[in-house]
Amino acid sequence: MNTYPESILKLIQSLATLPGIGRKTAERLALHILHAPLHEARTLASDILELKEKVKLCRNCFALSDDDHCRICQNPGRDSSTICVVENPADMAAIEKSGVYNGRYHILGGALSPMDGIGPDDIRLKELFQRIAQHSDDPANNSEPLVNQMVIKENTALQRTRIMEIIIATGTDVEGEATASYISQNLKRNRNITVSRIASGVPMGGDLQYVDQVTIQRAMEGRHGFNI
Amino acid sequence: MNTYPESILKLIQSLATLPGIGRKTAERLALHILHAPLHEARTLASDILELKEKVKLCRNCFALSDDDHCRICQNPGRDSSTICVVENPADMAAIEKSGVYNGRYHILGGALSPMDGIGPDDIRLKELFQRIAQHSDDPANNSEPLVNQMVIKENTALQRTRIMEIIIATGTDVEGEATASYISQNLKRNRNITVSRIASGVPMGGDLQYVDQVTIQRAMEGRHGFNI
Repeated sequence: MNTYPESILKLIQSLATLPGIGRKTAERLALHILHAPLHEARTLASDILELKEKVKLCRNCFALSDDDHCRICQNPGRDSSTICVVENPADMAAIEKSGVYNGRYHILGGALSPMDGIGPDDIRLKELFQRIAQHSDDPANNSEPLVNQMVIKENTALQRTRIMEIIIATGTDVEGEATASYISQNLKRNRNITVSRIASGVPMGGDLQYVDQVTIQRAMEGRHGFNI
Repeated sequence: MNTYPESILKLIQSLATLPGIGRKTAERLALHILHAPLHEARTLASDILELKEKVKLCRNCFALSDDDHCRICQNPGRDSSTICVVENPADMAAIEKSGVYNGRYHILGGALSPMDGIGPDDIRLKELFQRIAQHSDDPANNSEPLVNQMVIKENTALQRTRIMEIIIATGTDVEGEATASYISQNLKRNRNITVSRIASGVPMGGDLQYVDQVTIQRAMEGRHGFNI
């Protein structure tokens, strides 16, 4: 494969390191970039560099952000009494895309996985519990009084609304379940907070005959009346 | 989809302009680049820019090249009496990968397509005929004497061996066939050159029942004895 000049081979190699991009696709992409207008290639290159320079984690929820606080934490329209706990930014993006949730998030950055040596200290569980402790009526941690709701609206980045509910939206695999269970166990003693778990069951539009047994079991266990 | 910060969204948009990369894949790639080591992202960005800066076309055969002449035209080990005519660099790469060909190439940069307004002047046909005229015993164009074969080996980039055969390896679609036919028609009067066309037929490992009728027809027409 020495057909292409060095500079094309180098780009093909770089592109082929990306996930889901094989040698053939990398070759196609490199030839596309070669024939694309110069400004497009420049934009792509600068966007890659800018991404690495600019993006940091939100200090509050650890979502990806260009600023110290992410858009959701900065948005006074979002309900700060609810925190949805997810494993990673892509999960958060999926929930946001659904448009069904108007609260805040907490991104763990992974899930508990003793097999891979990932324990509670390796994901942002401590930060979650701290955040909850600081913003709830937990008797063990109410040294600072809660500020007035009216004041909060003006200083959104630092708002201290009472946290009322934690929705655990970690994955439905073993690691996600273990993490969900760990969080709910830890928050048990805090009676002012409702801890919930997103429902598991048959996906919408799914045909029952193709659904695995565990999902069917979950769907049966989670059955509910028609009035909800 | 305003979940991601601006710099990620920008990269996702840039990546999604690439062929075969949809929004979802672009999102996955952007998140991968975000988590990849900084030097990898820098390499990717610089490879893109370098490609656009460095790559030019070989002055002889119009293959992609970092230099004035491509590796194949510079290689004295390649048989310069045979020219394989292809539509684009990817076709040339495919033939090179097969390892079956040891001659030179001529990259047309497309195929004749009157429907799309691509005529003989829009692809490098003139350059092909000029190249052939300069390097063949065509009586109409032998003002300059052919240099000695021994001298040629020392000055490979400028070698002037006699061209003996043109292998037309344009595509087997309507445009490729039309281009092949146009070239062979134009070279008819030059009796010193053999013009051939790569064979069409049933692909190796192909099951006859899944092969289309036109290919079967070609395979039947192109049948040959077992001794070739």
